Amino acid sequence: MNGFTLILGGARSGKSALAETLVLNYVEAVPPHYLATAEAFDNEMVERIARHRDQRRGAGWVTLEAPHDLTALLAGLPTGAPVLIDCLTLWLTNHLLGESDLPREIDALEAAILARRAPVVAVSNEVGLGIVPDNALARRFRDEAGRLNQRLANRAGRVVFVAAGLPMVLKGTL
Amino acid sequence: MNGFTLILGGARSGKSALAETLVLNYVEAVPPHYLATAEAFDNEMVERIARHRDQRRGAGWVTLEAPHDLTALLAGLPTGAPVLIDCLTLWLTNHLLGESDLPREIDALEAAILARRAPVVAVSNEVGLGIVPDNALARRFRDEAGRLNQRLANRAGRVVFVAAGLPMVLKGTL
Amino acid sequence: MNGFTLILGGARSGKSALAETLVLNYVEAVPPHYLATAEAFDNEMVERIARHRDQRRGAGWVTLEAPHDLTALLAGLPTGAPVLIDCLTLWLTNHLLGESDLPREIDALEAAILARRAPVVAVSNEVGLGIVPDNALARRFRDEAGRLNQRLANRAGRVVFVAAGLPMVLKGTL
Repeated sequence: MNGFTLILGGARSGKSALAETLVLNYVEAVPPHYLATAEAFDNEMVERIARHRDQRRGAGWVTLEAPHDLTALLAGLPTGAPVLIDCLTLWLTNHLLGESDLPREIDALEAAILARRAPVVAVSNEVGLGIVPDNALARRFRDEAGRLNQRLANRAGRVVFVAAGLPMVLKGTL
Repeated sequence: MNGFTLILGGARSGKSALAETLVLNYVEAVPPHYLATAEAFDNEMVERIARHRDQRRGAGWVTLEAPHDLTALLAGLPTGAPVLIDCLTLWLTNHLLGESDLPREIDALEAAILARRAPVVAVSNEVGLGIVPDNALARRFRDEAGRLNQRLANRAGRVVFVAAGLPMVLKGTL
Repeated sequence: MNGFTLILGGARSGKSALAETLVLNYVEAVPPHYLATAEAFDNEMVERIARHRDQRRGAGWVTLEAPHDLTALLAGLPTGAPVLIDCLTLWLTNHLLGESDLPREIDALEAAILARRAPVVAVSNEVGLGIVPDNALARRFRDEAGRLNQRLANRAGRVVFVAAGLPMVLKGTL
């Protein structure tokens, strides 16, 4: 089993909490790094992001914001740092809306995750279990998110689906 | 394992049928009680509710309607009565639309469920696995529903996710 | 275990790829038959369907298009041919939009699947795990799709739920 864990789940399913627990289980010389992909669009969001960052700092995390430049950031982290990426779905959204070269971005992200020597836990949303969305961008996002999840699940050593805070292990062991 | 079972699933997933089977497996001196949270907004709904209630009466159930006052009703039931709550998601919807003090309502409901000596089986919808809804009330509902499911799953002795009528046990045993 | 397998999953979950693998695992004297239910509404779709059909031909499949007449087609296939139906959800959509006599169509399809002597693997979408759709046709579709999945899961010898390309076995064994 390699050191890459993918955590899948719906909105408010408890996937971030599980991911944090898994990362904190790793005892390493370097503190765990939290790579946050949310962008702050308004004051409420700015405050919420700051509050969460302060809480994590108290718990020993280093928090870095990476709404777009996740790949470069990953490559530059201390070798031994366990990493939590929260979450891939927002990173994908930011690149879709930013009209990035998506296949290239995804290739590079996958390579950067797999190049890490220390454990990486990434959180991603499952968004394909409702009815087909009316709008074309939402359909494209849904397709891209599903493909990204499949691809990373294929490379991960461990994949866990979370519902109501409870894990279903799809690959590897908890 | 305590006597509280949470059944999660999507629309038309067979979660109510599984919940009924589980409650009818309990043999108690007091008949099983069915707490229905659906509200009848039109004649078709009134008829459907009445028809289902008649069917359950034939099968030995006592049906009570509790679109809002589920908590008080639970506290007043006969001590030994096994209870089916169908479903928590409609109860939450009714309180969201009714602008209740939601944290207080949820605290009280949780306490009332856990105070029961006889088994309680509660049905709840998983609604967070599609794309982000356009409208703000839907997003809030989705967040509240996810939080409620996590919270009750944490307290339940048994949690089952149902898909296409088939159970996946997330906690405890069937 | 009978020879009918139902594969459930969301959009871009990898369910078709798993279904193809399962069908190709069967070694039979007759080549596997692929029953495609997608309808081509525009040139892009026509091309995509043709490209996929050519790929499958190279891999030894016979591809037949059955957006509506799946049941009659199933009955007329060579006795020993393993069959992949991809997918039931589009077939259901086509019949809903075509205002067919749905209960009769579903009865006939179920009977035709169960009458096959060689293995049948059918792919179907789980669409009920998002929030309630705004529009009435989408709600009806969601209900019908959920009922169809429950019914066929009940008759299948094997049911697998796929997320991010990874199987969760709900019934039978992989």
